[in-house]
Amino acid sequence: MSTITLLRKPEDARRKLAEAYASIATELAEADRIYAAELASRATYVARLVEHCSQLQGKRLRPALVLLTAQACGGIRPEHPVLAAVVEMVHTATLVHDDILDEAFVRRHAATVNAEWGNESAVLIGDYLFTHAFHLAASLDTTLACRLIGRATNLVCEGEMQQVANRGELDLDEASYYAIVRGKTAELTAVCCRLGAHYAGASPEVVDAMDGFGRDLGVAFQIADDVLDLWGEERTTGKTMGTDLEKQKLTLPIIHLLSVLPRAEAARLRVDLAHPDADVRRTLRPLLESSGALQYAWDQAQHFADSARAALDLLPETRASAALRQLAQYVVRRAY
Amino acid sequence: MSTITLLRKPEDARRKLAEAYASIATELAEADRIYAAELASRATYVARLVEHCSQLQGKRLRPALVLLTAQACGGIRPEHPVLAAVVEMVHTATLVHDDILDEAFVRRHAATVNAEWGNESAVLIGDYLFTHAFHLAASLDTTLACRLIGRATNLVCEGEMQQVANRGELDLDEASYYAIVRGKTAELTAVCCRLGAHYAGASPEVVDAMDGFGRDLGVAFQIADDVLDLWGEERTTGKTMGTDLEKQKLTLPIIHLLSVLPRAEAARLRVDLAHPDADVRRTLRPLLESSGALQYAWDQAQHFADSARAALDLLPETRASAALRQLAQYVVRRAY
Repeated sequence: MSTITLLRKPEDARRKLAEAYASIATELAEADRIYAAELASRATYVARLVEHCSQLQGKRLRPALVLLTAQACGGIRPEHPVLAAVVEMVHTATLVHDDILDEAFVRRHAATVNAEWGNESAVLIGDYLFTHAFHLAASLDTTLACRLIGRATNLVCEGEMQQVANRGELDLDEASYYAIVRGKTAELTAVCCRLGAHYAGASPEVVDAMDGFGRDLGVAFQIADDVLDLWGEERTTGKTMGTDLEKQKLTLPIIHLLSVLPRAEAARLRVDLAHPDADVRRTLRPLLESSGALQYAWDQAQHFADSARAALDLLPETRASAALRQLAQYVVRRAY
Repeated sequence: MSTITLLRKPEDARRKLAEAYASIATELAEADRIYAAELASRATYVARLVEHCSQLQGKRLRPALVLLTAQACGGIRPEHPVLAAVVEMVHTATLVHDDILDEAFVRRHAATVNAEWGNESAVLIGDYLFTHAFHLAASLDTTLACRLIGRATNLVCEGEMQQVANRGELDLDEASYYAIVRGKTAELTAVCCRLGAHYAGASPEVVDAMDGFGRDLGVAFQIADDVLDLWGEERTTGKTMGTDLEKQKLTLPIIHLLSVLPRAEAARLRVDLAHPDADVRRTLRPLLESSGALQYAWDQAQHFADSARAALDLLPETRASAALRQLAQYVVRRAY
């Protein structure tokens, strides 16, 4: 049984990420340029909101997945930085709208759009990011990217809605948890890798394998995110913590904890979870650790990260494929 | 100077609309079928939200514009019902998100999504409608529809954001009002007609003229909508009235009223508008009427409707072109 070894220092995590991204620095910068050009607006208010959203840019995991997969599968072509910008826009749109849902006030060490500009503006700038993402995707030669991104975002929204539907459902099981995670997170990371591989001219077999890589990496990433929401420090993660508990969203560590506790204790915990007070996160932490629930979730994240890495065995050993391996490990070894 | 002649009885308005739509009944039904098939979900919660949204379907003006323009420009082709479903999805998405912005509780005689299911679900089902709209548009052969609809929706969002930015701006002038209206409403009606004409094989000249038709019709429609928000009866319009005043959104009648009132009276009115009480709408009505401000706005709406109709002179006289003329008149002669 492994121990939980988060990269406690954000600077370590950032260094790891910088290493993985070293081979795509030029193309990431090009994606940033395309991103900014697509969203530019002469309307002052819109421009300020766009500026605020670009400050929310974090790890740029999704653009990096597009570019690294491309590099690992035959090489980056002109479509790839465009696609990288598209997936970052889609991701930022979902973040901005998620923060409305979560009533979160801090994201990536900055005020969320809803906290600073109100829900109205957060709804609209999210829509603006969505529509520009599709507009930009439609600048490519064929409808393929629009179709794939359309399908993935359909499933992202469906996953998010299932999560809302299950709020307060204190008997949520693992299967339902995974169904939500596969939709809301893994569909987008999967399509990033599919697009990266496809537009690099990879064979259908490799394209499917890369889709699987992105999907497993997405699940690993989300489990780690859910663990951090219970376990991380706001100072380090740079976002509001404990929102899952507040919103009565059951995540893997809690689901497992409820399944291993004696029946009476589990019943008491469900009562606490149904009426979460400000202290619930703090009081839960020792129990999550002593019961092994946290370790269980962490092991599951590691399992998906391992499975993601296995999908890369189809690829030749290159610097890019090594970076993808590193990324799969990074998503479960980060503290932000 | 014309008098305000709203079609007071909703059943008269509905009959007029049914007449205009008679020639496209089959294709509208086909668009409805495509709409429902695209949005179908096995997730119960999602399916219920979709069902709720389809109850919000009202005049289906935008799908009708696609189909009637197509018919008037050479004939309806298989792409048109698909495009009709796409624009209706986009429109419904903006309605659902608008209702969050407006904190509106009644729409088309039904509870709004936010009132019945909460803001979270309203944000997500709106996103779901957007992403499905683009996914469906991407099922066509080329990226043209995705590009045009992407561009139009970009401008719709920008218009909406400019409206939010100008909330509480009690010195808003007509030019700024029209800039907002052209974005938030007229871009979408313009693209409906452009798509209808283009996919019917019309010449670039006719395609541009139809775009102009849709644009002017959209402006006329929005002015009429804004007049109704001040003047209509909730019983008849089937939606929450007076939200513009509550939200301090200045619309054409008020902007004109402020410009014709003596300076001191205008200043007093601005104070009232800055702190609107529940009675502001009722107390404003006599003033809007006696000052001629309501008539002024109505005349402007009529002017845009006339301009829209003039764009149709390029087309041969057919049943479809007559229906488009009728529709342009209808948008300023409706009470719902």
